[in-house]
Amino acid sequence: MARSSTRDSIGNSATDSAPNGKVALLGFGTVGSSVAKILCERSNTHLRLTHILNRNVARKKVDWLPPSVQWTENIEDVLCSSADIVVEVMGGLQPSEDWIRRALASGKSVVTANKQLIARCGPELISIAAQKKQQILYGASVAGGVPVISGLQMGLAGDELFKIRGILNGTCNYILSQMESNGVTFTTALREAQKLGFAEADPTEDIDGLDARAKLAILARVGLHCNVSPDSIAAQSISAIEAIDFEYANQLGCTIRQISWAELQNKLQTDLRGKPQQKEAGADGDRLLAAVQPALVTLSSPLARVEGSQNLVVATGIYGGETVFGGHGAGGHPTAVAVVSDILAIAHSKQDGMSNAGQPAGQPIGKTPTVSTDFTAKHYLRFLVKDRPGIIATLATILSAHEINIDAVLQKPGYPKSHLPFLITLEDCKASLVEQALQQINAVDFLVQPCLHLPIL
Amino acid sequence: MARSSTRDSIGNSATDSAPNGKVALLGFGTVGSSVAKILCERSNTHLRLTHILNRNVARKKVDWLPPSVQWTENIEDVLCSSADIVVEVMGGLQPSEDWIRRALASGKSVVTANKQLIARCGPELISIAAQKKQQILYGASVAGGVPVISGLQMGLAGDELFKIRGILNGTCNYILSQMESNGVTFTTALREAQKLGFAEADPTEDIDGLDARAKLAILARVGLHCNVSPDSIAAQSISAIEAIDFEYANQLGCTIRQISWAELQNKLQTDLRGKPQQKEAGADGDRLLAAVQPALVTLSSPLARVEGSQNLVVATGIYGGETVFGGHGAGGHPTAVAVVSDILAIAHSKQDGMSNAGQPAGQPIGKTPTVSTDFTAKHYLRFLVKDRPGIIATLATILSAHEINIDAVLQKPGYPKSHLPFLITLEDCKASLVEQALQQINAVDFLVQPCLHLPIL
Repeated sequence: MARSSTRDSIGNSATDSAPNGKVALLGFGTVGSSVAKILCERSNTHLRLTHILNRNVARKKVDWLPPSVQWTENIEDVLCSSADIVVEVMGGLQPSEDWIRRALASGKSVVTANKQLIARCGPELISIAAQKKQQILYGASVAGGVPVISGLQMGLAGDELFKIRGILNGTCNYILSQMESNGVTFTTALREAQKLGFAEADPTEDIDGLDARAKLAILARVGLHCNVSPDSIAAQSISAIEAIDFEYANQLGCTIRQISWAELQNKLQTDLRGKPQQKEAGADGDRLLAAVQPALVTLSSPLARVEGSQNLVVATGIYGGETVFGGHGAGGHPTAVAVVSDILAIAHSKQDGMSNAGQPAGQPIGKTPTVSTDFTAKHYLRFLVKDRPGIIATLATILSAHEINIDAVLQKPGYPKSHLPFLITLEDCKASLVEQALQQINAVDFLVQPCLHLPIL
Repeated sequence: MARSSTRDSIGNSATDSAPNGKVALLGFGTVGSSVAKILCERSNTHLRLTHILNRNVARKKVDWLPPSVQWTENIEDVLCSSADIVVEVMGGLQPSEDWIRRALASGKSVVTANKQLIARCGPELISIAAQKKQQILYGASVAGGVPVISGLQMGLAGDELFKIRGILNGTCNYILSQMESNGVTFTTALREAQKLGFAEADPTEDIDGLDARAKLAILARVGLHCNVSPDSIAAQSISAIEAIDFEYANQLGCTIRQISWAELQNKLQTDLRGKPQQKEAGADGDRLLAAVQPALVTLSSPLARVEGSQNLVVATGIYGGETVFGGHGAGGHPTAVAVVSDILAIAHSKQDGMSNAGQPAGQPIGKTPTVSTDFTAKHYLRFLVKDRPGIIATLATILSAHEINIDAVLQKPGYPKSHLPFLITLEDCKASLVEQALQQINAVDFLVQPCLHLPIL
């Protein structure tokens, strides 16, 4: 990869070649080395990589970086240096948080890909940066190389967004699309994803939705101006999905995806042809419906067509309707593109003496809404029962007692009576109502396992 | 639409309520009135609409704007005013161009949705703006509400893009998707589009690709840093497409769309898994392949799934692979979102004393490449012949003499011998080679009409 132009473009030791673009890199793993590579290979950017920090840095050294780059294990080397922009791509809450705070305090701007940190401390870190007339940008923290944060903050600044739906976790999407197309079990798909490096040895963060809800919390802040803690967003694991669920979903014209969604309640509603309708009386917009969960999506929806480890975000505004952003949600190079885009934005604004490029333009101050998952939708209930007469009657009686209307009952042939899967779909009703009914249903003796409950979006 | 908060938010006549956000609107048609509506309905933006200019302005007046707005037919009223930002949504080359030049010269920034003007004079207007420490933004000039310009300029600034493909004309996409799903003729689909207001009485600009190539010229400049005149981009009309072409396309696993595409030749090529491959020896990147034309796209491609008047852009970079932007490409409200986003970006940067927000960050100076349509692809040749023995042999001989390999021959049954359509697909070869062969082929006497030649992308 060493090209003669590489050294010329960033190896020049005269500091005025990068008056506001001296970059220190914290972390030299997959993303960090891709960031270094792009900074190295791209000329014309007026950026210069000055430091690389990593544990056991000796074993990390590569020969394709100019000798002027200082390799270190000591954060003080970076903090005391003349670096203008500190790039944190180590991950983890600590020491990342401390080091970012100290970098901001010492008058450096920060670019980070750290979703958990930004989901938890984003507003505070942004406020510290503003006090120091610095910036902290985090475009790589959601959906890797897909420029959704700048898209929501800048490109759609003129709209009032009220709904965000996305596929924000490539691991879950890989597993679910494998189950869909190859008919394999969850366990098989997970093992394959682990073998291919798409899933961690401990896949909990991905599978259980904890990764995606941190990203959703960031999108809700950026797009819906709602300060919500990731912990306040309900997350449901995809591990209960079985092959049979894809068969039933398909019969309904749907597939199953891990969907991250957030919707401001009582906002102006739109009929999706871009015509805003009357705001409801007494609306205050201070309630956010949000969750990360496996859900049925119609096959014609862009969400259903996201394959493998791709990411997609659909933002809906009262004026512009639906806007879609899609692409590579992970991987060293795509994530590094987002990081370098942020570095360029900061360097550009520093050159111009501006302190807050990339911060939202003229947008309302963040609300701190109550978060609820009590949305109204059609519902998918998949049962696994020991067959006997009267099962449907029992379930129908319980549902009816909760004033829930059954939409359809489906039962595929060819399963043993001792483990018989079948499906009930419900007409539009509140999720909380279904959960109440399910408490009662899950206590009946013919169920082999608790009912799987998914929304139909 | 008059809400009590409306007047409060922008009707305040104290000028310090909008220190850098006084907006004059040139044009009060569909887009202009949507811009006014958004400025009116959105609070917290610190923007204030001060002037509306239109011909016969008296008949344009509405009751939902605050009385402080000055309605005028005279551009001097705007140019002499204290408006900070002039928004041009009149369309047409003149007087738009003169008025934009005069607005910039008098120290005002400009937001425009005028694709033909920006495609033709964009760089010069940007340079005039820079001299005056002002900005000209044009996010609404391509793909309406889809934030693709800011996405390429800011969100993907860290990548090196080498290919852009898009569906940039909603009228053509509406017509082609109607032909696809309802099997109607081009003429029927066009008439329907005209009835519904999706196509103009004179639809030439749309149908023949002149609208889309202006947008493509802008995208090539913004994303590929190539200064190309729209006139140098070949445009092929969609009017020769017939219902039978959708049947044949479908047999090939494809559909037909008007595709606007531009690709830097000899750029680093990527295998689309985000891994850049070696640059070709002697590569200079100074040749641009570009065209607007009906083309076959595989049904699994995001381009094939764009329905009705939606727009979609796929940008490919050597680091980040493919990134997709999609949404409403036209309509008053979506286009107005793009306009208001630009207004906000300018107001925000003015507030911060910065002169060039929204201009590309750290990007190379534009190249002026030669433009060619001589791409290498598989090709679709649809013939309409008066049947007789030896037709295939004649065609095969001519193609073979040009060293073109036939991939497949398809002929659907059920057509009269006097007007028999059939299909030949060609293996990968240069478009110019096919055109040479077609010159000879179109001279043979069994053809009822010239061969329809489309690329298979």
